[in-house]
Amino acid sequence: MQNPLIKYNEEEITLAHKINNLKKEAGSHSPSIFTFKQKLPELNIKIDACFLSNPYATDLFLNYFTKEIINTGKIRELLEFYPSQNQVISEILSSFLNVNYKNIFIGNGAIEIIQAVIHNFTKKKILINIPTFSSYYEFVKPGIEIIYNTLKKENNYQLELDKYFDLIKSEKPDTIVIINPNNPDGGYIESHDIRKILETVREVATVILDESFIHFAYENDNFDPISMADLVTEYPNLVLIKSMSKDFGIAGIRAGYAVMDEKRVKELLDIGFLWNSNGLAEYFFRLYTRADFAYHYNSVRIRYIMETIEFIEQLKKIKGIRVYPSRANFILIELPENIKSIDFVTALLLKHGIYVRTCEDKIGLDGEYIRLASRTSKENKIILESIKNLFK
Amino acid sequence: MQNPLIKYNEEEITLAHKINNLKKEAGSHSPSIFTFKQKLPELNIKIDACFLSNPYATDLFLNYFTKEIINTGKIRELLEFYPSQNQVISEILSSFLNVNYKNIFIGNGAIEIIQAVIHNFTKKKILINIPTFSSYYEFVKPGIEIIYNTLKKENNYQLELDKYFDLIKSEKPDTIVIINPNNPDGGYIESHDIRKILETVREVATVILDESFIHFAYENDNFDPISMADLVTEYPNLVLIKSMSKDFGIAGIRAGYAVMDEKRVKELLDIGFLWNSNGLAEYFFRLYTRADFAYHYNSVRIRYIMETIEFIEQLKKIKGIRVYPSRANFILIELPENIKSIDFVTALLLKHGIYVRTCEDKIGLDGEYIRLASRTSKENKIILESIKNLFK
Repeated sequence: MQNPLIKYNEEEITLAHKINNLKKEAGSHSPSIFTFKQKLPELNIKIDACFLSNPYATDLFLNYFTKEIINTGKIRELLEFYPSQNQVISEILSSFLNVNYKNIFIGNGAIEIIQAVIHNFTKKKILINIPTFSSYYEFVKPGIEIIYNTLKKENNYQLELDKYFDLIKSEKPDTIVIINPNNPDGGYIESHDIRKILETVREVATVILDESFIHFAYENDNFDPISMADLVTEYPNLVLIKSMSKDFGIAGIRAGYAVMDEKRVKELLDIGFLWNSNGLAEYFFRLYTRADFAYHYNSVRIRYIMETIEFIEQLKKIKGIRVYPSRANFILIELPENIKSIDFVTALLLKHGIYVRTCEDKIGLDGEYIRLASRTSKENKIILESIKNLFK
Repeated sequence: MQNPLIKYNEEEITLAHKINNLKKEAGSHSPSIFTFKQKLPELNIKIDACFLSNPYATDLFLNYFTKEIINTGKIRELLEFYPSQNQVISEILSSFLNVNYKNIFIGNGAIEIIQAVIHNFTKKKILINIPTFSSYYEFVKPGIEIIYNTLKKENNYQLELDKYFDLIKSEKPDTIVIINPNNPDGGYIESHDIRKILETVREVATVILDESFIHFAYENDNFDPISMADLVTEYPNLVLIKSMSKDFGIAGIRAGYAVMDEKRVKELLDIGFLWNSNGLAEYFFRLYTRADFAYHYNSVRIRYIMETIEFIEQLKKIKGIRVYPSRANFILIELPENIKSIDFVTALLLKHGIYVRTCEDKIGLDGEYIRLASRTSKENKIILESIKNLFK
């Protein structure tokens, strides 16, 4: 391993090797903080800028959780008793989302929904834009054909609609996947273009629209919330997937939902997904839909977006790196040609205790990249200084 | 609704109707305590004898949890960060179970594993003993044939091995399901007979052995723990499923595991199940495998078995009901012919605040039954007195 950025001592070289091995073992996802602690207790991670979440919303949630669940002793019943069944939780979300509960499917994290949808609704051929979240192609069952639409670097990895439509016409996939904003580049498709896509691809049986990062996107100066969930009645081929881990930093709770045609929800519930939510996820959804909580959440959502915009502006000023446009809470950064992504990540972790994501496993990216999460403004400043320091 | 046991006032009649409707909506599973609270807040449930768990183990777990997770503030990281991936948690369980981690699959509750196994390994025909846990036939996908082996009432719903083997020979299912002890009757198959079954059904591709209630079974006076998990290397067709909710009363956490052939674990992980454990489930498994915890757990496990045996003896003395032999933590009880199960359950709930399970939705039961969970010795006494009171 060679790293032109930095000189390591022997101890650090050993640790760097261990980090790289751990990364390799984890495959196309980063090792979790727990895995790091278990296997590399000598490592001191100060800032987890791999983890894509709004830290202010985490604090907000934890304040409510501490007051209502920990301090009251109600934690016991959340752990002890069976959580409600899927459609009972759908009912809780229904009026909040302005969608009939029969169109809502609750998942053990969005990841379970991705798995369920691809396993049950994709019949022959799936079209996936790359770079993307790897589970979309990894979870595809043997026998299903995967077609990749490679987004172009020279176009900032933005989806080109006309070419996309041509590809759909010629390949005739039964499933297409759109993540908006896209992961790992943060590229955003405006609402009117999403509508245009939905209008154009009516022949595609299943249109997966993953809005896991949509709370960080904006189309006006008020940062009004955006979602296409209510379009599901108009477009029965639409399957909208939403993770809650990104908005609230509650990846440990596992909470996500989907909005889709009533028949699809029934088809899934008829073959399983009975108690797939845990007690804390049920509490989360009850809280999330409460007016008092929603009000506070919107404030911290907007604060976080504004700070992320500022973070991106500052990153752009660092010479030697290329910062891709993002309307998500993370930024795709291209490194200079002579620096390997894994070396940069290891250096940042060893010298500054900052954990960011390599993108070497991401198919469809041309060059050496990292994906950097926006954290608190204080942490963002430390991240900025640390990156500058590595380039000195 | 007529109930010869009891006279209701008007308020109670309304409530009784609501309870029955809620039961109907929940289908083949009982409404959760949360669902009851949400929809019937006027109902006062004092003892949940529908819920199959060891309450002493719940206390033990919660003591550790409070000390290690709540009081230290570590709850935050359990909620915030991604839990470890499936095989990292398998490694934690590996030495405790004395099984290679590659043979262990972690589930979001046993229910997720039942779903995964039946959806992915059952190809054409499944043989299910009834009465049983309904998910085993409900989760079967369209196109798969279900053969039922009806256990006989006159034989106390015990599995008759020779007839079972004949049926397997003639029907040639690719999957068979054995729950031991069986749900809802508690009937137990001795270890030497499980071995005999495994020896005889080597031609059956998938043998599901559900040991979710095995911690409550015993074959000697020391109540030594029983499990067939280590047989998976000898019998590659064996898929052993284990819920943890029954042993610890932590249904809200969703934790279960399976032991199966390494190729099967890989097949499942190749198509999903990436972050299907939540942070609390990961903590649970780390705690469960610790020597100090295991020592205390075994004490409360034995205490609970002994009290359950006593509870069964006392129930047998009540005239008019038939108590079926059980080596689980619940008891199947047949009611007198003139009493409907739902009426008995409603009366017990309205008059005594005790929630027990009707068995009217259980296919394969001939007569009117309830399934009664063993709770603490104090609660068991109240349950006994309340049932006696209804029969006065």
